[in-house]
Amino acid sequence: MFQVIFIGTGGGAPSKRGLPAYLMKKDNFTALLDCGEGTQLAMIRNSLNVMSIKLVAITHLHADHVLGLPPLIQTMSMYGRKEKLYVMGPPGIKELLEESFELTFFKPDFPLEFVDELTLGEIHVTPFRTCHVVPSQGYLIQERDSSNLDVEKLRREGINDWRIMRTLKEGKEVHWEGRTLRPEDYLIKRRGLRIAYTGDTRPCNEVIRAVRGVDLLLHDSTFEAGVNAGEYGHSTSVEAAEVAKEAEVRRLALIHISSRYRDATELVKQAKRVFPMSFAPSDLSFLNLRQG
Amino acid sequence: MFQVIFIGTGGGAPSKRGLPAYLMKKDNFTALLDCGEGTQLAMIRNSLNVMSIKLVAITHLHADHVLGLPPLIQTMSMYGRKEKLYVMGPPGIKELLEESFELTFFKPDFPLEFVDELTLGEIHVTPFRTCHVVPSQGYLIQERDSSNLDVEKLRREGINDWRIMRTLKEGKEVHWEGRTLRPEDYLIKRRGLRIAYTGDTRPCNEVIRAVRGVDLLLHDSTFEAGVNAGEYGHSTSVEAAEVAKEAEVRRLALIHISSRYRDATELVKQAKRVFPMSFAPSDLSFLNLRQG
Repeated sequence: MFQVIFIGTGGGAPSKRGLPAYLMKKDNFTALLDCGEGTQLAMIRNSLNVMSIKLVAITHLHADHVLGLPPLIQTMSMYGRKEKLYVMGPPGIKELLEESFELTFFKPDFPLEFVDELTLGEIHVTPFRTCHVVPSQGYLIQERDSSNLDVEKLRREGINDWRIMRTLKEGKEVHWEGRTLRPEDYLIKRRGLRIAYTGDTRPCNEVIRAVRGVDLLLHDSTFEAGVNAGEYGHSTSVEAAEVAKEAEVRRLALIHISSRYRDATELVKQAKRVFPMSFAPSDLSFLNLRQG
Repeated sequence: MFQVIFIGTGGGAPSKRGLPAYLMKKDNFTALLDCGEGTQLAMIRNSLNVMSIKLVAITHLHADHVLGLPPLIQTMSMYGRKEKLYVMGPPGIKELLEESFELTFFKPDFPLEFVDELTLGEIHVTPFRTCHVVPSQGYLIQERDSSNLDVEKLRREGINDWRIMRTLKEGKEVHWEGRTLRPEDYLIKRRGLRIAYTGDTRPCNEVIRAVRGVDLLLHDSTFEAGVNAGEYGHSTSVEAAEVAKEAEVRRLALIHISSRYRDATELVKQAKRVFPMSFAPSDLSFLNLRQG
C-alpha cells in the first residue's frame, strides 16, 4: 500500500492551503515531493516524522516549491540526523542549498546526495519533462511489479510440493508427472502502483506520455476554466482533467489551487465533467492507494 | 498606543511555537522584527496584513530568524506592492535576499532600501549590539517624546488666550500681565514608549546598556535555569530576568522558547523570582502598550 499525504495543496502565495509539499510513503520508503515554505511546520505539528524522509524531489526552483527545503534540512541536522538524504531537482538545486547554508552559517551533519533518479528497495523514482516557465520536471514513482503463486490453482491440481512452487515462483518450468508446468500459468501478476506528480505545468504531450496509466496523477490545477492559466505556465482544472483522460490514469488529484479560491468545489465540478475520477484534496488529507 | 504581536515565540526548530517574528504597530507604522520560516503563513491565516509592513529588521542570519523573508517579499510583490520596504540587518542580509531572488527567478516589483537606522514619523528604530555566536544586533524602537499643555492649570490661572497657549506649547516664554510664563511650568511631558528586542543573545552589558528603562523588553529565553545556554549563545529565562532587573525595564517578554518545552510555565516561574514583571507570550498573542 502507498500512502500519499497532501501536505500543502495551494500554490503561489499561501492561504488556507499551504505551499506545495506531498509525501509518498510505502513501508520504509518516504519521499517528499516539493517543499514550499512551512512544510516542516505542517509536518512537525501534525506528527509527520521529518526524519523518515529518504528523498526530497523538487520540481522547479520557484520560491513556493523550494524555500521550505533549506530550513527542513537544518532541522533534520538539529535533530541529529546522520543518514544520507537524497535530493533530486532541476539545475540550480545544489547551488540554492549550498548558498543558503553558507549565508546562514550552516553545514549539515549528514550527507546530501544529488541524484538524477533513484531506486530504493521496490521503489523507483524518475523525473519527466514538464512544461513550465522555468526549468522544471515532474516525478514518476513506480513500485516494482511482482507476482504471486496461484496456490489455489496448484492445490486444485494436486500440486503441494514446495520445491515445485519455489521453482515456478522463480519463473522456471517444472516437469511433473509427465506434464510441463509453465510459470505463466501459475503466477498472478501484480503490477506495481504508479504515482505521478507534475509540479507546475501547462498541459502538454510530454506530461501525457510520462504519466500514461498511472494509478494517481497529481496535476497542476491552479485555476478554473476560462482563466488564462497559460500566462504563468499553469493549467486549469479542466486542462488537468483532459490530461488525465488522455493519459488514461486511474485517479486525478487537482493540486496547486490558487489562493484566490476559497474552496475548490467549482474547480472539481468542472474537472469531473471531463474526468469523473477527479478530486481536490485538502491540506493534510491522505489517500491510501492499493493495487485494484 | 503600541501594539506588539508575538507571531512566533519559539526558536531553533519549529514546534507548537513558530519561529521568531514580532510585529510592532503604531498607527501607520508597522515593523516586523525577524522573519522565521512560516511568518507570512501565520500572518495571512490570522488576518495580519503583510502589505502594511514598512520595515523588516533582522537580528542575525540564522535560518530560524530570516528564511521567512525571501518568500514574504515574493508574496508582497505578487500582491502588487509598489511601496518601498525598508530592511535592516547584519552584514550579509542584502546578499542573502539577492541570492535567494536570483536562484528562484524573482525580482521584486517594489524597491527595497537597506538602512542602518530609520525614523518614520514619530518612531525611531536603531540597532544595538548583542552577544550571539554570529554577527547579531537587537533593535530599539522609540516613540518620540511629546508634551501637552496643562490646560487645567492655565485655566485656573485665568489664562485662556490661544496665542499664549500656542507660544508655550512651542517651548517659548510669554510675558503676560507683568508675569513671565515659562513653558516648563505649563507643559506635561510624556515620554515616548520604548521597546527592545534582543534576538538571540547571551546576557551581556551591551544589551543591558542599550535596553535600560524600556517599557517592554523581548529577551532571548531559550532554556530553563541550569541548562548551559551559553554553549549556543543563548540565555536562560533567569538570565533574561537578571538583564531585565539590572536594566530596570518595565516588562519582560520571555521569547525564543526552545521546542523542547511543551509549555513555558517553569521558565516563567523561575524568571518571576528575579523579575516579577516577566511573562511568556504565546504565538499570536498581543500586548497593547500605553504610556503609564
